[in-house]
Amino acid sequence: MNYFLGIDGGASKTEGVIIDKQEKLVVHIIGGPVNYHQGGEEQTAQNLEKVIKDALSQANFKMDDIAFAVLGVAGRDTKEDEIILDKLAQNLLDGSFKNKVKVVSDVEIAFASSVTCDYGIVLISGTGANCFAKGKNGKVAWAGNWGWLLGDQGSGFALGLGALQAVMRDFDSRGEKTILSELILNNLHLDRADQLGHWVYRKEIPVKEIAGLAPLVFEAHKKQDKVAQDLVNKLVAEMTLSIKTVVAKTSLVSEEFEIGLVGGIFKEELVIKLLEQKIKQVAPKARIVLPKMEPAMAAAILAKKEAL
Amino acid sequence: MNYFLGIDGGASKTEGVIIDKQEKLVVHIIGGPVNYHQGGEEQTAQNLEKVIKDALSQANFKMDDIAFAVLGVAGRDTKEDEIILDKLAQNLLDGSFKNKVKVVSDVEIAFASSVTCDYGIVLISGTGANCFAKGKNGKVAWAGNWGWLLGDQGSGFALGLGALQAVMRDFDSRGEKTILSELILNNLHLDRADQLGHWVYRKEIPVKEIAGLAPLVFEAHKKQDKVAQDLVNKLVAEMTLSIKTVVAKTSLVSEEFEIGLVGGIFKEELVIKLLEQKIKQVAPKARIVLPKMEPAMAAAILAKKEAL
Repeated sequence: MNYFLGIDGGASKTEGVIIDKQEKLVVHIIGGPVNYHQGGEEQTAQNLEKVIKDALSQANFKMDDIAFAVLGVAGRDTKEDEIILDKLAQNLLDGSFKNKVKVVSDVEIAFASSVTCDYGIVLISGTGANCFAKGKNGKVAWAGNWGWLLGDQGSGFALGLGALQAVMRDFDSRGEKTILSELILNNLHLDRADQLGHWVYRKEIPVKEIAGLAPLVFEAHKKQDKVAQDLVNKLVAEMTLSIKTVVAKTSLVSEEFEIGLVGGIFKEELVIKLLEQKIKQVAPKARIVLPKMEPAMAAAILAKKEAL
Repeated sequence: MNYFLGIDGGASKTEGVIIDKQEKLVVHIIGGPVNYHQGGEEQTAQNLEKVIKDALSQANFKMDDIAFAVLGVAGRDTKEDEIILDKLAQNLLDGSFKNKVKVVSDVEIAFASSVTCDYGIVLISGTGANCFAKGKNGKVAWAGNWGWLLGDQGSGFALGLGALQAVMRDFDSRGEKTILSELILNNLHLDRADQLGHWVYRKEIPVKEIAGLAPLVFEAHKKQDKVAQDLVNKLVAEMTLSIKTVVAKTSLVSEEFEIGLVGGIFKEELVIKLLEQKIKQVAPKARIVLPKMEPAMAAAILAKKEAL
């Protein structure tokens, strides 16, 4: 009972770690996706069990060696999600984790991976977007986390889609000329913009691949492309709006607190710089921080806290 | 050889008509969809053959009774589409239509169904959007026809999606309060906005159903809802931009010409009224007209012209 399990379960892969009492890493395992909205409950349970079994087996541990497990999973957004996923977790491995497992949202482990205090904000921007705050009063709030079509306006997908739409507007002359047209067509090995339809409209819309175009927007921005600059400014404005919204909901506005920036879009320093300027207007005493550890590790440390 | 066949082939259904020399309707048949981007070439050919055979059989005609056929089909947008669909048409019914069949875009038959002259503009707004112009000089131009994700900003889908995004912004307080939230949740029999994700993210995104929310936006507009008013103004601005773009490309700006409005969104008089005001700025002598006949009938009349 001296070890702690943390899971970071996403829509494309799952990471699992086991740590000891000194928070030292024992094993690190990668497995299949666990967003039950996409893969269903059965596949989610199977993939979670596989990661846990693999981790135990690699460490040469039995179930009893684990004092507590925290599973941070994507797609845990509504009350219905909470009920379904809690039940799923209690039944994992024939119920042998019962009473020593807790399911949290992937955004909560992202929070724990970056923000030092009990209160603060985490802003996620990768393929999707999310903004989560905990107030000093214990109140929590979310903004902007509704998936690629309904929300996620501050995400890599939103930036990539905006770029594709700008290319079509350039092509048929509804919009300004932009070097994004050349950059994107070259990147996708296409000759003309009207071939982009074939690339986009597939059985399953290539959400991740569209988000993967984001670096081209930053490239165009650095080349002073006006269309790219507008797209990046819009992205940062949406991020700022999400922060402003959760700051108000959790009464953090005049507090000193940390805003953790998590996700691939923050590899781009330009975004951090622009966001830092904007944040001053909505949370003057806030301070931007970056992740200190992998989310799975943060989940394992949460498990240790739960066990104590 | 005294009859003419017209086909209006769409992504959800196909209509076929046969007319006589006096342009009198002989038969009217409805069949399956023919957008080959969605159903593939084989299914498209099969559905076209079925509609043609059914029309001939119902009229008690042989192939020889048809002097010419015009097939107006959705998804004929690029050079590649033209080549594939022309070949497909020549091979229909074991090649018995060879040299007496022409494939055109569905937008061209929409043009013919509404615009009286050889030149002018047709603006389509249903689930999707398109804008097509023919200049006095014979030049043609398109704008805005890139499907629900890349383009179609002046469409029912764009309006419906904008409404859903506004509901999510209302729900998490990023946006203004709007009566669209109540109207849409009631319409879809949902209790809370965070249940909309389940409704939207399906194996196949419900593009038509999202477009089907457009009337609720008009309802909210009439109740002076600010968010709905902004959405409708944006829709009309996108329509106007498409018209402005094709007007410039076909040198129609100072001409007197007709703009045909085709598609479900124009059932709403509010849109026509707002658009009429805006069009004055980009084509001062243009005149709005509505369809005079079904698109399949317009295709049959084009077939008669081709045969003469």
